[in-house]
Amino acid sequence: MMPEGGVAWRASQLAHLARLAHQALTCAEMGDLIAAAQTEVAALEETHPDRVNVREIERDWQKATKLPESLVSELAELSSTAMHEWAAARKASDFKRFQPWLEKTVALNQRKAECLGWPSDGEGWDALADSYEPGLQASQVQRVFDPLRKRLQGLLDRLQGGKRKPSNAFNEHPLNIADQERFVRFVSKSVGFDFSRGRLDRSTHPFCGGSHCSDVRMTTRYLETCVLDALGSTMHETGHGLYEQGLDANRIGLPMGEAAGLSVHESQSRLWENQVGRSKPFWAWCQRQLPAFFGDACDRFSLQDLVDGANVVEPGLIRVEADEGTYNMHVMIRFQLERSLIKGDLKVADLPGVWNRMYKEYLGLVVPDDRRGCLQDVHWSMGAIGYFPTYTLGTLLAAQLFEKARADLPGLEEGFSKGEFQPLLKWLRTHVHAEGRRFRLDDLCRKVTGQPLSADPLMRHLEGKLLPLYGLA
Amino acid sequence: MMPEGGVAWRASQLAHLARLAHQALTCAEMGDLIAAAQTEVAALEETHPDRVNVREIERDWQKATKLPESLVSELAELSSTAMHEWAAARKASDFKRFQPWLEKTVALNQRKAECLGWPSDGEGWDALADSYEPGLQASQVQRVFDPLRKRLQGLLDRLQGGKRKPSNAFNEHPLNIADQERFVRFVSKSVGFDFSRGRLDRSTHPFCGGSHCSDVRMTTRYLETCVLDALGSTMHETGHGLYEQGLDANRIGLPMGEAAGLSVHESQSRLWENQVGRSKPFWAWCQRQLPAFFGDACDRFSLQDLVDGANVVEPGLIRVEADEGTYNMHVMIRFQLERSLIKGDLKVADLPGVWNRMYKEYLGLVVPDDRRGCLQDVHWSMGAIGYFPTYTLGTLLAAQLFEKARADLPGLEEGFSKGEFQPLLKWLRTHVHAEGRRFRLDDLCRKVTGQPLSADPLMRHLEGKLLPLYGLA
Repeated sequence: MMPEGGVAWRASQLAHLARLAHQALTCAEMGDLIAAAQTEVAALEETHPDRVNVREIERDWQKATKLPESLVSELAELSSTAMHEWAAARKASDFKRFQPWLEKTVALNQRKAECLGWPSDGEGWDALADSYEPGLQASQVQRVFDPLRKRLQGLLDRLQGGKRKPSNAFNEHPLNIADQERFVRFVSKSVGFDFSRGRLDRSTHPFCGGSHCSDVRMTTRYLETCVLDALGSTMHETGHGLYEQGLDANRIGLPMGEAAGLSVHESQSRLWENQVGRSKPFWAWCQRQLPAFFGDACDRFSLQDLVDGANVVEPGLIRVEADEGTYNMHVMIRFQLERSLIKGDLKVADLPGVWNRMYKEYLGLVVPDDRRGCLQDVHWSMGAIGYFPTYTLGTLLAAQLFEKARADLPGLEEGFSKGEFQPLLKWLRTHVHAEGRRFRLDDLCRKVTGQPLSADPLMRHLEGKLLPLYGLA
Repeated sequence: MMPEGGVAWRASQLAHLARLAHQALTCAEMGDLIAAAQTEVAALEETHPDRVNVREIERDWQKATKLPESLVSELAELSSTAMHEWAAARKASDFKRFQPWLEKTVALNQRKAECLGWPSDGEGWDALADSYEPGLQASQVQRVFDPLRKRLQGLLDRLQGGKRKPSNAFNEHPLNIADQERFVRFVSKSVGFDFSRGRLDRSTHPFCGGSHCSDVRMTTRYLETCVLDALGSTMHETGHGLYEQGLDANRIGLPMGEAAGLSVHESQSRLWENQVGRSKPFWAWCQRQLPAFFGDACDRFSLQDLVDGANVVEPGLIRVEADEGTYNMHVMIRFQLERSLIKGDLKVADLPGVWNRMYKEYLGLVVPDDRRGCLQDVHWSMGAIGYFPTYTLGTLLAAQLFEKARADLPGLEEGFSKGEFQPLLKWLRTHVHAEGRRFRLDDLCRKVTGQPLSADPLMRHLEGKLLPLYGLA
C-alpha cells in the first residue's frame, strides 16, 4: 500500500525500530535478570510454562547479544530497500538491477552468520536458519530432502502415465470477483476464523500478519477465471490465522504466547489448505454452498469436477501457484541455491543460469525469463535466507498431524462434508496452538504423533489421493 | 479497519508508545542538552531555523515534563477505549453508555490542565487548547466568536429572505461510485497532490494522516447520490495533504519540518475545499472534465447548477455535512460546551439537554436523537478538548490568506478555470508550508497578510458569493 516515494523513510523507520528493539533486549541489566529468573525456575519441570519462557528469552537474548547493533539496523535498512529494488527488477524481469542488492544481502547475511556462529558439524546457513526454525541444520534438511525428492519424482512419473486426466474445467470457469470474495469469507468463517478478531483483505501476494491474537490480518487475491486461486490462498492464510488466534492471549509478549518456528506455522496453513481444502468431503460441503454465492453459475460442475480442479498436478514455473504434487520441488531448488550462496560456492551473478538448469532437472521446465525464474520470490530480497525449507518441513508435519487427528477423532472427514470443522480446530488448539514455543519442531511432532517427523504421512496422503484421480489406484 | 476484538490490545500498545515517547522527551539529559543548544543559538536571529527548532523543542519538553508518565499513558489508554465506546454508543444513539467514559475523559483532562497550568488571566481550557494551537486562550476565542456569530446570523437571516433559491439538483443526482472515485482522484492530482508520495483511500470519516511528507495517507467517502460529498471531502483532505507534502523533507523530525498548529492546518484544507473548490472558475474547469468520467450523465446540468449545488446554504444537524454558511455555528456550540465542561459549570449528564437547546438557539433546529446530537463527533471521546475552535480559526485564516494570494497573483481565479492550480500551491508552499513551526498563528497571519487574524475576509468571501446566489446582490 505504501506509495513509492515513501520507501526511503520507511526503511529508516524500520532500521530505527530494529535498533531500539535490539537495545531493549541487550541492555545491561538483561543478563542479570535472566540469570535470576533461571534460578527461580530451576526447580520447575522442564516444560513448565515459566521455565519455557525463561529458556526461550535466554535463547533470544543470546542470539541478540551476538549481533552488533549496527549490523541489525544495517540489515533492516537494506531489506526494505532491497525489497523495493527486487519488486522493480521483477517487474522488468531485469536480474542485473537486483544483482548488487542480492550481493549485499548475501554478504551481510554471511557476516550475520559469522557473528551468530554455528555448531562444529554445521555451516553458515545453519546460523541463519536458526532464526526461522530453532536448531535447524542444512545437513539435516538435506537428509530429509534427498529421499523425498526421489519419492516425489517417482509419484510424478507415475501420474504422467495415468489412465485418467483430472478435469481442469473448474479452474478456467469465470466467476464474479465480488461473489468470490463473499464466498471465501464465508468459508474462512465456517472453518473457524473469528472475524471479530481479524480481517481478510486483498493484496497481490497473500499473507497473514497482525499484532496480536485479537487482531490478525490476512489477505488473499482474486482471479476472475479461478475461484480456486482465491479459495486456496484463503484456506492457507486462514490456517496461519487460526494458529495466531489460537495463541494464549494471557501470555502474549512471552514465548509461551508466541508461535513456534515457521515450520509449525506452515503446518497449520498447509493442513487447512491441503488436507482439508482439497479433500472430497470438504468439496461435498462446498458444493452445497456454491448456489448461495454464485447462483446457477456452478451448476454444471459435478462434485468430481470440483475435486479434480483442486487436485490437478502440472509442473509449473511459479512456486506460489504450484500444486500439492510439485510444490516441494520448488522449495528444494531454493534450499540448494541459498545454501551454496551462503557457503560461497555460488556467485550471485551465476544464480539465473543455475536456477534455470535446476528447473530443467527437477521439473523438466524451460524458464523463459528471470521474472518467472529466480526473481519470483520476495524472500531473499528481504534478507530471509534459511527460510524456504520450513515450507516443506511444515508440509510434512501437516500430513503427520492430520493422520493423528484422524485417528483421534473418528468421523473427522465425514464431518467436513457436513460443515463440521470445530473438532479439528479444537484438536489443533490443544495440541499445537496452546503450546506456544514450548517444543521444538521435532519434539512437538513426537509429543503429538508419537513419531519423529517423517515423509511417510505426506507420501501416503499424496498417493492415496492422486493415484485414484489419475486412474492408478 | 481494526476488528472489534483488537481494541483492548491496541489501547495498551498506544499507552505503551505514549509512555516511551514521554520517557524519551523527559529523560535526564534532555534539560542539559536543551540548555546547551540554547546557548549555541542565542546569537542567531529569532526566526532562524536553528533557533526556532530549539525554541519549539524546549516548549514541547516543558509541557512534557509537567505531565507525570502515568497520566500520559492513562490518557492514551482511556482515549482508545473511550473512542470505541463512543462509536458503539453513537450507533445505538445511547448517551448513557458513553456518559461514564466522557466523565472520565473530562476528569482526566482537568487533571492534565492542572498539571500543565495556565496564564493568570486564563482558565483550564487554555492549558488543553495549547496542545492544538500554541498560546490559544478561551477568552480570546470568545472575543472572535461573539461578533462572528452575530455577523453570520445576519447573513443567514438575509439568505432566508432571498429572491432566488440555488438549485440543489446536482446534490441529488446519482452517479456511479467507481466513476466518482476516478474523478476525485483526478481532481486531487490536478490541484497538486503527489500520488507517488501519498494515497487516497476510503473510510467512513475522511481524514489525512501518514508518517512523513513522502507517505501521506488521505481518505474520502462516497455517496451514490452526491458526488459533491466525495469531492468536498477530497478537496478538504487534499488541502491537508498538500500541506504535509509541502513540509521540508530535510527537516522532518525537527519543529521546522512540522506543521504549525491545527488552525494553520485547517486553513489549508478549508482554502482548497471552499475558496477553490466551491468557486465558479473551479467548476468551469470541472464541468469540462465531467464527461471523461461520467459520460453524458451530467450533461443536463448547467455551470450555474454545479455552482449552486456546491454552495446551497441549509442549516443541518451534522457538523461534517454543514455548508460554508452554517459550519462555524456548529463549532461555536462545541466550544461553549467544552469550555463549560472543563470549568465544571456543565455536568456531563446535562450535556444532551444543553446541546439540544443550543442547536435550537443557534440554528433553529430540533435535535431528534443524541446520535445526530452530542454523540456525533469523535473528538471528545479521544480526549481532544480545546480542538474545535481551530476549525473556525482555520476557516478565517483560509479566507485571509486567499485574499492576499489573489492580490499577489493576478489572474489567479481565471487560472482555475483553465486547470492552473500550481501558482496558488507554489504561493502556499512558500508562505505557509515551508515555514514549519516558525510562527504562531497570529504571527504567521500578520507576516503573510500584513494584518492580524480577522473575520472580515471570511465575511467578504461569504457575502460576495452567497448574496448573488440568493438574488440579493
